[in-house]
Amino acid sequence: MTTDIVILGAKGRMGKTLVNLTLADAELNLVGACEREGNTGGIEHEGCIMTDCLEELLPQVPGAVIIDFTAPEASLAMAQIAAKNGNPAVIGTTGLNSTQQADLEVFAREVPLFWAPNMSVGVNTLLKILPMLVKALGPDYDMEMVETHHKMKKDSPSGTALKLAQCMAEARGWEYDDVKKHCRDGIIGERPKNEIGVQTLRGGDVVGDHTAFFFGPGERIEITHRAHSRETFASGALRAAKWLAKQKNGKLYSMADMV
Amino acid sequence: MTTDIVILGAKGRMGKTLVNLTLADAELNLVGACEREGNTGGIEHEGCIMTDCLEELLPQVPGAVIIDFTAPEASLAMAQIAAKNGNPAVIGTTGLNSTQQADLEVFAREVPLFWAPNMSVGVNTLLKILPMLVKALGPDYDMEMVETHHKMKKDSPSGTALKLAQCMAEARGWEYDDVKKHCRDGIIGERPKNEIGVQTLRGGDVVGDHTAFFFGPGERIEITHRAHSRETFASGALRAAKWLAKQKNGKLYSMADMV
Amino acid sequence: MTTDIVILGAKGRMGKTLVNLTLADAELNLVGACEREGNTGGIEHEGCIMTDCLEELLPQVPGAVIIDFTAPEASLAMAQIAAKNGNPAVIGTTGLNSTQQADLEVFAREVPLFWAPNMSVGVNTLLKILPMLVKALGPDYDMEMVETHHKMKKDSPSGTALKLAQCMAEARGWEYDDVKKHCRDGIIGERPKNEIGVQTLRGGDVVGDHTAFFFGPGERIEITHRAHSRETFASGALRAAKWLAKQKNGKLYSMADMV
Amino acid sequence: MTTDIVILGAKGRMGKTLVNLTLADAELNLVGACEREGNTGGIEHEGCIMTDCLEELLPQVPGAVIIDFTAPEASLAMAQIAAKNGNPAVIGTTGLNSTQQADLEVFAREVPLFWAPNMSVGVNTLLKILPMLVKALGPDYDMEMVETHHKMKKDSPSGTALKLAQCMAEARGWEYDDVKKHCRDGIIGERPKNEIGVQTLRGGDVVGDHTAFFFGPGERIEITHRAHSRETFASGALRAAKWLAKQKNGKLYSMADMV
Repeated sequence: MTTDIVILGAKGRMGKTLVNLTLADAELNLVGACEREGNTGGIEHEGCIMTDCLEELLPQVPGAVIIDFTAPEASLAMAQIAAKNGNPAVIGTTGLNSTQQADLEVFAREVPLFWAPNMSVGVNTLLKILPMLVKALGPDYDMEMVETHHKMKKDSPSGTALKLAQCMAEARGWEYDDVKKHCRDGIIGERPKNEIGVQTLRGGDVVGDHTAFFFGPGERIEITHRAHSRETFASGALRAAKWLAKQKNGKLYSMADMV
Repeated sequence: MTTDIVILGAKGRMGKTLVNLTLADAELNLVGACEREGNTGGIEHEGCIMTDCLEELLPQVPGAVIIDFTAPEASLAMAQIAAKNGNPAVIGTTGLNSTQQADLEVFAREVPLFWAPNMSVGVNTLLKILPMLVKALGPDYDMEMVETHHKMKKDSPSGTALKLAQCMAEARGWEYDDVKKHCRDGIIGERPKNEIGVQTLRGGDVVGDHTAFFFGPGERIEITHRAHSRETFASGALRAAKWLAKQKNGKLYSMADMV
Repeated sequence: MTTDIVILGAKGRMGKTLVNLTLADAELNLVGACEREGNTGGIEHEGCIMTDCLEELLPQVPGAVIIDFTAPEASLAMAQIAAKNGNPAVIGTTGLNSTQQADLEVFAREVPLFWAPNMSVGVNTLLKILPMLVKALGPDYDMEMVETHHKMKKDSPSGTALKLAQCMAEARGWEYDDVKKHCRDGIIGERPKNEIGVQTLRGGDVVGDHTAFFFGPGERIEITHRAHSRETFASGALRAAKWLAKQKNGKLYSMADMV
Repeated sequence: MTTDIVILGAKGRMGKTLVNLTLADAELNLVGACEREGNTGGIEHEGCIMTDCLEELLPQVPGAVIIDFTAPEASLAMAQIAAKNGNPAVIGTTGLNSTQQADLEVFAREVPLFWAPNMSVGVNTLLKILPMLVKALGPDYDMEMVETHHKMKKDSPSGTALKLAQCMAEARGWEYDDVKKHCRDGIIGERPKNEIGVQTLRGGDVVGDHTAFFFGPGERIEITHRAHSRETFASGALRAAKWLAKQKNGKLYSMADMV
């Protein structure tokens, strides 16, 4: 069984990657591609409708799953049209505020919607597995984290590092803000037991590495995630599309529901 | 609440480590130490009976947990005496054959016994967590493993590497022997999907490193365990002792029961 | 001072990367782009001549450095034209046989030519540094290597792994073929002193990782090179172009001359 | 040819390790062991004189190399006696002030003396190799460092991390204090080109790990040193002893002279 796919922003950086991965996957079928007015030239694939109007497209591709890595307002507009036409949608847009998230939940009552600001299957799997690891190891294991990103990244630690460290803290019964240690310099004294160090490296064009450390008596565990390329986020979205095609409406799904 | 501890082979390499860690742990109480006849000199701690006769010792330390990293026959003899006296025992002895394991299970009906050929909390936690990770990531992730040990180690891959790789194979629904790849050299062709490469490094005095790799589309996860020192196995045994003191007889417990 | 650049195969995968990096580099000036007949449409940059005929192009761009990642025969044809016109050329083509290499050396008498089958600055730097490291550490350090590549790679170990291991062997005074160990499985016995293990991992879409290990008494050194993307090879070629523009003819230069 | 060895503080933690490694090394000959008055019992090896008086010992072991991991004042007193008797000495004592270092240089005019506050062959080799690596890679490579130590370590970054980072800075023509970045937290902005991030992890009983990163276009190099055990410092001292036995007086030697 194949899943029909409609890609928004099909000529953008992420859109192109999505198009290529969809065409290369025998379980997927590219049936539609959307771009803004005046930018619809250049994508020609058999059976794929290229358009600048989603509203006109959707009735022609019933059941097709929309993939949307655009911007908050565009994604909300898309969700409304999707709900009206009964097309499920996978949304990878970041920066949605809480009102916009609540709006997505309303549309999700009518059609299956999936939203994840980090589409990496690996990162989301770690978010699920790490709490179990923390509990199994117990309180003798000191927890630390290092993240590495390209030199252009302006914030530190990365959102993903914070999310991973938070889920580790919670599993230990800690409030992250009480135990976080983003800076060490000078005479820091012995490491307190209730601490998670999250340290930041920057350089080159690294897409994103995260390592969680668990230092115990005479041993350690290191769990590293490396994103090699933007492709990993596109690939996660397409996997979500296959999964979403089988889900019912009523809920705004997330990566945690899938992995 | 403290746990009373009796250490067998108290002057051997592992025994010394166990004695030191027990003395340093406020939740543990060293009440007895055993060595073979003629070798009982030199260990003097307040409240600790040094002896060459376990049978005479146990009635004086009711409820104390015995720690035994000796040899198969000695461990079986110990288990019989422990069962008779109602003292729980943690056994880290390796190389027990199936008859000896069955005998331990018989004694375990009368007194709580715990046996683990690898006492590392970290490795045993990974054995529990890896299957969940494998299932969550799904079939798109190629699985590989590297293990590193000191130059004196004579077998390859290590028993721990095989155990980890087997649990990864099973979680994928594979028989390990069908998918294992311990050697790659020359024109090997494209990697088959149903394969787990387990590769071996040897050198120096490395206690033992294991890394499991999960290579997916545009990302990877690496899970590394490093044993820094023999202490990790002693530490795991003492943790098991605290846990075992609260268990009932009827079962030969293992690390999987504890972590 | 800027360097003028001509790119061959400008619309291929590597060609596009070269064009993008050249345009983004203020020290470089894209003056020409070559594609085969009928494929010259689509590249339009101010000051850049798009052509299917190198012979007609070169007289219009005196001193411009040619970048060529094509195929052995095409590279040889290019070298002849470059020599005739006095344009230096950086060649990243792989698979040249010894006759073709000898031919390049002949053309290099007339014009500066640079050839490297692996353009990575990092790998070539390691080839220069590793022998010093090996000699400084001395014979107590056991040497091993692991390489990881994507699942499509058909040979093992990689050419780069072999080159790195060979340079380590030579620095120790060994013939690589006498000490190589590409397979370990079963009862392998204690590690011989005169051995270099080179082990292979395959999976996902890894561009290429190599780690050299030096295991000594109570310590180890690990030297890892990771290629993140094809860009690293393009980037190495452009750096070679800047360098080559200042060299004289008479020699077929390699990465070892530059780093 | 064997080297005769005298070990100071032979019953201390480091002294015991030195004794064991000396006895295990066919090229070394343990001829003397020194402890403070009242603590000389317990070490008995054929041909080894156990004493609490170095002055009486040295005339009986001409040419023997002294190994001294004690304290600044004790080491200075030792150096004076060594110089008087013509016995070379390897000193691993840390915390010598500049006057004491100057005094050692004076004694070194009369007898070969070797002083290194970090006896690790690996770390000292990296201090020698890293500048060449930095220069070969050139200014496009962003440099960062992470160090990991046990939870009891009170200062950050480690002295070794600072020394490594300083040698990397100097090789780039930078003053370390101008480019160091020990803390990153919040909105840090794009990474400045003239920066070296040195980040700190703490946990468990890690002896000491250091990794230098070089992030370049599409690739990176990672250089990791791991100290597994105190043995590495003892082993470095014994290697220095063998080497020192062949050197002339006139200079206070360091690890940089040997590796």
